[in-house]
Amino acid sequence: MKYSASGVNIDAATRALARSKEAVRSTWDARVRNEIGAFGGLYQPQPGGPLLVASVDGVGTKVMIARMAGVYDTVGRDLVNHCVDDILVQGAEPLFFLDYFATARLDEDILPQIIAGFAAGCRDNGCALLGGETAEMPGVYGPDEFDLAGTIVGQVEARHVIDGSAIAAGDRIWGLPSSGLHTNGYSLARKVIFEVAGLKLEDTPDELEGVTVAEALLAVHLSYLEPVRAFWAGCGREALHGLVHITGGGFYDNIPRVLPKGLCAHLDTACWRTPGIFRLLQERGGIDSREMHRVFNMGLGMVMFIPPDVDSACLEAMGAVSIGEVIEGDPPVELVFPA
Amino acid sequence: MKYSASGVNIDAATRALARSKEAVRSTWDARVRNEIGAFGGLYQPQPGGPLLVASVDGVGTKVMIARMAGVYDTVGRDLVNHCVDDILVQGAEPLFFLDYFATARLDEDILPQIIAGFAAGCRDNGCALLGGETAEMPGVYGPDEFDLAGTIVGQVEARHVIDGSAIAAGDRIWGLPSSGLHTNGYSLARKVIFEVAGLKLEDTPDELEGVTVAEALLAVHLSYLEPVRAFWAGCGREALHGLVHITGGGFYDNIPRVLPKGLCAHLDTACWRTPGIFRLLQERGGIDSREMHRVFNMGLGMVMFIPPDVDSACLEAMGAVSIGEVIEGDPPVELVFPA
Repeated sequence: MKYSASGVNIDAATRALARSKEAVRSTWDARVRNEIGAFGGLYQPQPGGPLLVASVDGVGTKVMIARMAGVYDTVGRDLVNHCVDDILVQGAEPLFFLDYFATARLDEDILPQIIAGFAAGCRDNGCALLGGETAEMPGVYGPDEFDLAGTIVGQVEARHVIDGSAIAAGDRIWGLPSSGLHTNGYSLARKVIFEVAGLKLEDTPDELEGVTVAEALLAVHLSYLEPVRAFWAGCGREALHGLVHITGGGFYDNIPRVLPKGLCAHLDTACWRTPGIFRLLQERGGIDSREMHRVFNMGLGMVMFIPPDVDSACLEAMGAVSIGEVIEGDPPVELVFPA
Repeated sequence: MKYSASGVNIDAATRALARSKEAVRSTWDARVRNEIGAFGGLYQPQPGGPLLVASVDGVGTKVMIARMAGVYDTVGRDLVNHCVDDILVQGAEPLFFLDYFATARLDEDILPQIIAGFAAGCRDNGCALLGGETAEMPGVYGPDEFDLAGTIVGQVEARHVIDGSAIAAGDRIWGLPSSGLHTNGYSLARKVIFEVAGLKLEDTPDELEGVTVAEALLAVHLSYLEPVRAFWAGCGREALHGLVHITGGGFYDNIPRVLPKGLCAHLDTACWRTPGIFRLLQERGGIDSREMHRVFNMGLGMVMFIPPDVDSACLEAMGAVSIGEVIEGDPPVELVFPA
């Protein structure tokens, strides 16, 4: 099975966005400091001053799992943490967040739970929940369905922006463990788990080692703000050559967003333990390993590029796992799978 | 007919948001400079520095009209202009905007039109389209339906923040004409126009004076950035005591967001011409005048509070219409209707 079988056409979106590139650029002036495709947009209000870094996202059809399970206070945390990670990869720390919540029919007991999730996520990251919008749109949304979008704004000093240009052959690659699917691949995951495997939310298949399907699928997206701050404090900001948030597009599409041309991230998948939820999806869905690593994070939510002279103890202390190294040549991402 | 008959329950949303107030406040520190309920959130990264002003919004079920009419390049302009107006009322000028677009099934010919609308809106307001997110979520959205959300970030010097505290008895009230419904009241409008009146998008009922239903309903939300800048340039920033964006909640709910307690905005509805689309909605829907002014902008998208010594010529030059004055007493908003 491939991701496109779940009704999500990544290629069509990529083509449509490519057609819009010039229109987007036509709105930019010298204060915009990024390229299209970066995780967050960089904006410098005053020359020489700090940069604002902004990003918008949703949690995909993880909202449908939340609705099915009747658990409404975790998706807001997912979204805040996702957004924090998206700007963290450029070196930014969060200032504030704004949420959008829309649904077919507003339930006044559900909305406060949703907002409580956003507020908890913001508190955890020292980020202000500065605004929000709630919309009731019967007809646009399916019965009882809802969607979320969130926008984060953070800040980074110009000299601290991480854009991957410092990455060089010989750099070591480290991964930071994820809690599960985080916020991507849910359309494929739902198809495999509910349609192909015929599992229910309360089931506890062997692969999940005692955890229910609902718990595994709703595990909250991790924020990597604290471990990355600890790394900066211990090893210095300049010791982090590149940082990649493994979101939609997995390893194959996200790593090239920061890796300079002509370099290859050579990763050995045997270096880290793939959590049960991914093994379940791969086996029950009959999905090949490359497709799995193109859709899912496979147990690593963040990938770090570190010069070889940095003390490994500093990385091991933050829970990072050594997963490979940067070499010269093509392709930009090469994953080694067990024979 | 009342707004609640259209399936939108404003009171339930208000109660649910009231229950969330403490959770939201728990995320704030000294850098957050606003009260809940303000049009935009105020954030001061550095003490004494300029304030960032941010706001998030959607265009409500205006998206359904766009889908029905097959017109996809105007709703993005609606949303940018709406957001620009939301932060303008606090004195802020836009820096950048981020969009979220989600749909049941991504059409690669429609998405570029949507983004072209966002880009055009951003160019018109000198604002960078800094980022965006596109999501394909079959099941969450009804077939062919889509939704938009947008977040704007602007900036204002601390001494230029407008919060309405300068408004005093004797201030004159001026209105700036709207282009139509702008972006609110669409659930009620759709019910009246399509269900009660049985009209079609291509119809040209007398009230619309030659314009089709589709054209009237898709008229783009106006940005008031240029006229307000012209006023600041001509009369000085201190001559604008208060500014109200007439959005969801109409005159009755929006004016109290800036008016100091103990004052009453006394408005004579005979002072301005209500466009045909509103007369059509009122007559065909059997909606009373108070409800109309609680749901719709009734032809005025922005209301300005101006000290009496400001030269009227400056306001008339920007197309503003004198609509009333501030008096002592209750209620906060009093509209005089023709007998």
